[in-house]
Amino acid sequence: MAVIVQKYGGSSVADSVRIKNVARRIARKVKEGFKVVSVVSAMGKTTDQLISLAKSVSVNPNERELDMVLVTGEQVSCALVAIALRDLGINAISLNAFQTKILTTRNHTNARIVDINSENLKSYLKNYDVIVITGFQGITEDEHFTTLGRGGSDTSAVALAAKLGCDCEIYSDVSGVFSCDPKLYPKTRKWKYVTYDDMLELAAMGARVLHSRAVEIAKKYNVKIYCASSFTDEEGTWVVERLPEWLEEPVVTGISLDENQMKGSITNLPNDANVISDIFKRVAEKEINVDMISLVKNGEATHVSFTVISDRANGVKELLDQTLSVYGVKYRFYGRFTKITVVGTGMRSSYGVASRFLELLASEGVEPELITTSEIKISALVSEESAHRLVEKICNEFEL
Amino acid sequence: MAVIVQKYGGSSVADSVRIKNVARRIARKVKEGFKVVSVVSAMGKTTDQLISLAKSVSVNPNERELDMVLVTGEQVSCALVAIALRDLGINAISLNAFQTKILTTRNHTNARIVDINSENLKSYLKNYDVIVITGFQGITEDEHFTTLGRGGSDTSAVALAAKLGCDCEIYSDVSGVFSCDPKLYPKTRKWKYVTYDDMLELAAMGARVLHSRAVEIAKKYNVKIYCASSFTDEEGTWVVERLPEWLEEPVVTGISLDENQMKGSITNLPNDANVISDIFKRVAEKEINVDMISLVKNGEATHVSFTVISDRANGVKELLDQTLSVYGVKYRFYGRFTKITVVGTGMRSSYGVASRFLELLASEGVEPELITTSEIKISALVSEESAHRLVEKICNEFEL
Repeated sequence: MAVIVQKYGGSSVADSVRIKNVARRIARKVKEGFKVVSVVSAMGKTTDQLISLAKSVSVNPNERELDMVLVTGEQVSCALVAIALRDLGINAISLNAFQTKILTTRNHTNARIVDINSENLKSYLKNYDVIVITGFQGITEDEHFTTLGRGGSDTSAVALAAKLGCDCEIYSDVSGVFSCDPKLYPKTRKWKYVTYDDMLELAAMGARVLHSRAVEIAKKYNVKIYCASSFTDEEGTWVVERLPEWLEEPVVTGISLDENQMKGSITNLPNDANVISDIFKRVAEKEINVDMISLVKNGEATHVSFTVISDRANGVKELLDQTLSVYGVKYRFYGRFTKITVVGTGMRSSYGVASRFLELLASEGVEPELITTSEIKISALVSEESAHRLVEKICNEFEL
Repeated sequence: MAVIVQKYGGSSVADSVRIKNVARRIARKVKEGFKVVSVVSAMGKTTDQLISLAKSVSVNPNERELDMVLVTGEQVSCALVAIALRDLGINAISLNAFQTKILTTRNHTNARIVDINSENLKSYLKNYDVIVITGFQGITEDEHFTTLGRGGSDTSAVALAAKLGCDCEIYSDVSGVFSCDPKLYPKTRKWKYVTYDDMLELAAMGARVLHSRAVEIAKKYNVKIYCASSFTDEEGTWVVERLPEWLEEPVVTGISLDENQMKGSITNLPNDANVISDIFKRVAEKEINVDMISLVKNGEATHVSFTVISDRANGVKELLDQTLSVYGVKYRFYGRFTKITVVGTGMRSSYGVASRFLELLASEGVEPELITTSEIKISALVSEESAHRLVEKICNEFEL
């Protein structure tokens, strides 16, 4: 029997009209001959509302109990989709994490899937044409509910597809993977295919389409993902291991902007690797993400620069005040800046992308504050006003 | 270890302030040395809202899926109570029907409890001081959620108390069992003790305090129930098998009014039991409740009178038109009337209650349209205007 996993995001099931629409889409797939495993998120903003409710009882709600509250969101939306499917004459049933037996770690509010009982899944698929499964949730071995954290429903869907060895369709309010945010550059290009690696690097712009944890699982188990909109029949984007051979690989697949960045610079640190690692360890312990770390050795001293999102800058300053006083060195913060990133697995086999990128910056008279590169990514920290101007130039240069 | 079951109704947990209040009450019991099994209803009007939501998707939602939706209401409120208890430093955990293993029949939306795994309960009670259990719900043997119908949380609470062999406290927004609705007679009396049998007969006025299915289970397993308000520390009412010996048994424990009654009279029916049973069978098939049926044989003919709530009268008329045409007999409807009922297990051992009751009616110049009596109950159908006047007289006569 042909099986497919279809995941519908919160905005796709935000009200009863949309729920009936989702049911019609699932029913269509059944009529094409598929057994459908449908993974559904909580309706609209339900999860946020449930979190607020819990926080109205306690500023710091017990996480095991918070998960008990949160999992109800998906249980309601799944049952409603099943109700709508039944009305269409489809033999459907909704299942929560207990019934599906999605086993996770004990790490409440941010658990990881450990196993899914596939015998159980297959027996439901024998008896029903559609099983509607609560995304975002699981149970521990000793029968406590857990949730999988942000993007958890995507993870549930891909994990189910991996277990069933089938493709996974992810429906949201975005019609696929674009080379950049259409708000930044309206003529942006939608890809028919994107590799897992590109998708992972495109996290910033891709998060609304597909969560990176889900992509990691898809990559590991080679699950083909199809991202599209639940509101139109427009063609979406396949996320795959390798592009089809007939398709010329683009050098750059995406461009993204991270705004509100501040640059921190520490000058004249002693040439001691322990000092640098000590600083960044303390920052990490405070759960502050620093990015674009670059280090230059200059004779007797080391200069370090990094970026941090502006509302976390004060936290970093506090830490630096404590740490650096020992060494008697100074730091300064600059900004705000915008980080502009181009991504493409094609860079691996195509030379000169970095130089084309830097040339473009120079020809526009933009002097980057920081540059970092990886195998498939180049990022430059530039002034806020130049960033938006650069987007269009870069899109033209790399045919995005 | 001393265990007690405490049930809190929907209005007692309607918002986060009330939830914290309930948590404080439970915590107090823990500090008195009890392990508390707390059964909690869904917050305020949640169940009604969830039903509306399901009906916005389908006019006739699949019942198995409707139960999937409904059970989330109690899961949220229970987890919130557990969160509030944790904040008070109480070692509490919330459990749904899966985790508690409350086994029911498969009769969705109106299931009956078949068994509760007491080993499981006891193991949770070993590890926690409070377990907060979702009322109103259960699971079938093959792991589908069920709900227990109206008053289901009371039933859950009493069933748990029966299983644990402990007392059951039922908290709502009513402070106990009154001899009549305080709206009818402000000087009404609150009982310290009421028998199961009285409580069952007092259903009409008792429903807001304690559901009759719960009383039936309490009677069967001899569970002592204490009904009180969660909003005050006022003394409530014990519902028990027998009143304490030191307490003089009241002859009459309660009085209730059923308004909007119409009287139907069918005259000159043939003396054939089949005819009468045929009529009432058809009425029952239409799910119309008729009450106070009284039958008088008069030579060759039989006269039947009964009451029906006025908005169902048209349904009965339709049926009578179809059925009676065969026999060529006539019927008439009268009203509206009010049914006034006095209840008391004390009537069993005390003679003359009926005559005192009828005398009172006569002295007030009230001519009852119909009278029915049972071992512990007398009802009279009277005009609406005299009913309210009679309440006070009856309360005085029987010291209510």
